[in-house]
Amino acid sequence: MTASIQDPIAAPEEELASLKQMLQRRLDQLIPAGGERDLVSAAMRDGALAPGKRIRPLLLILTARDLGCDDDHPGLLDLACAVEMVHAASLMLDDIPCMDDAQLRRGRPTVHRQFGEHVAILAAVALLSNAFGVVAAAEGVASDSRNDAVAELSAAVGMQGLVQGQFLDLNEGEATRNEDDIANTNELKTSMLFSATLQIAAIAAEASPMVRQRLRHVAKDLGQAFQLLDDLADGQTGTGKDIDQDLGKSTLVATLGVEAVHRRLREHLESADDHFQRACGQRGATQRFMHAWFDQQLAKFH
Amino acid sequence: MTASIQDPIAAPEEELASLKQMLQRRLDQLIPAGGERDLVSAAMRDGALAPGKRIRPLLLILTARDLGCDDDHPGLLDLACAVEMVHAASLMLDDIPCMDDAQLRRGRPTVHRQFGEHVAILAAVALLSNAFGVVAAAEGVASDSRNDAVAELSAAVGMQGLVQGQFLDLNEGEATRNEDDIANTNELKTSMLFSATLQIAAIAAEASPMVRQRLRHVAKDLGQAFQLLDDLADGQTGTGKDIDQDLGKSTLVATLGVEAVHRRLREHLESADDHFQRACGQRGATQRFMHAWFDQQLAKFH
Repeated sequence: MTASIQDPIAAPEEELASLKQMLQRRLDQLIPAGGERDLVSAAMRDGALAPGKRIRPLLLILTARDLGCDDDHPGLLDLACAVEMVHAASLMLDDIPCMDDAQLRRGRPTVHRQFGEHVAILAAVALLSNAFGVVAAAEGVASDSRNDAVAELSAAVGMQGLVQGQFLDLNEGEATRNEDDIANTNELKTSMLFSATLQIAAIAAEASPMVRQRLRHVAKDLGQAFQLLDDLADGQTGTGKDIDQDLGKSTLVATLGVEAVHRRLREHLESADDHFQRACGQRGATQRFMHAWFDQQLAKFH
Repeated sequence: MTASIQDPIAAPEEELASLKQMLQRRLDQLIPAGGERDLVSAAMRDGALAPGKRIRPLLLILTARDLGCDDDHPGLLDLACAVEMVHAASLMLDDIPCMDDAQLRRGRPTVHRQFGEHVAILAAVALLSNAFGVVAAAEGVASDSRNDAVAELSAAVGMQGLVQGQFLDLNEGEATRNEDDIANTNELKTSMLFSATLQIAAIAAEASPMVRQRLRHVAKDLGQAFQLLDDLADGQTGTGKDIDQDLGKSTLVATLGVEAVHRRLREHLESADDHFQRACGQRGATQRFMHAWFDQQLAKFH
């Protein structure tokens, strides 16, 4: 890393833009281009380097800072990139024909449409494995803590995480589900990786077990809020994804109606705020970022 | 663990049978059955618990012992199970329709035929993630060493390992390849996970860098020998796999002929022996196991 992660003089927006640039550069290094015929590397790069919101890695860096992590911590950027790689891998897998069979993602043809299904699957597996390797080698993080971070990431992906969430979403999405079932699937699909993100931030910042417990609540609320936003956005144009992908699925929008979902989303954000403030002892950069982001997204619906 | 891994009085065959039983019991614990509707857990268990040769986990335990690892090392069994989970995941993925489209594996319908393609893929991803979590939490292994073991496993799966090997096998298998190309693909498909297996054994036994370097050579030779055996076995009945799965693929059997492949296989085994003996300073249980195993397999061709 050549630059410090935080430039204290920069305005928040400039700071975020600069962080995103640093993430992009580091992802580019961590997923090197292969030779001309190396489609797996090309697909990995396409999935992970395509312009994205980078919510999770930004959240990781900002939270670690809010918890007192050094601005120029040498491993923070790598930990953030690892979480983004896992996220990119999960999107690539969600999109393949035997799952959601999606055509568009981030405004571009999905990875399997460009490179073939087998390449998309192999690239997702390579991104996942890469992420674990990056975490295990993160500079400036104690060995014990790196093992802890690997365990958090492993839990977020596995049987009790993304994998199970995607399975429930596919297998039970079209059945009539009650609110609890939907919330449970949303938690597995979204909150678990948010949880790993915040836990890894706390690990890097050497936060206390009590802070880590608070952050588990934050992740739960944030994940639900994100999934509700995603449900609200489905059916809208301009999301960069297939329209009406969730048509026929039993979502909370279909069950409760748009108004109630907006209200519930706000409640989750307030609850996340509350937990976050107790974890950090102050309103920090992470909360400003999350509020600005949700305000911006919700403004699109008016 | 309730029993010691090694019972010094037992004959080698009984000892192996007892080790396999312990592996089976521990895999059963590490991949718990889910509820009735949890097909992902069921598929993970089907892929990993189905009777298999357990070459890699046995190799890990025997090698660690030959290198002086304590017989009742509390983490060795878990490390061995992690390697088997990665192997099972790779087989499940290799078999799906967009890859090899295999119908039989270990004499049973392949996982995707039983549970569907999306479940097979999700189960493979969960097994992989689980494996990293198990390694990061292995008891009785120093924190640094666990990070090291995660890195070895990550390298074995990713862009320079199983993933790339499977890609080359699928994309270039039907083209005419020269011997070097075939050996390279074989190395990625097979030797890389053998390498991680032996490296993790060495990590558990706190072996020197020089020993670890020797074991990299052993893995290279063993991987080639296994792949050659696999090529020889293709077209035979009784392997528990689809017959003629490699038909049309450019293998070394097709390129060099059966006789030359037998000769080459023996050369790789001798070379592996030589490196192994230099690594361990003596002919140990690992070498006896490997020789007995290859002799048994090769006897089927006469």
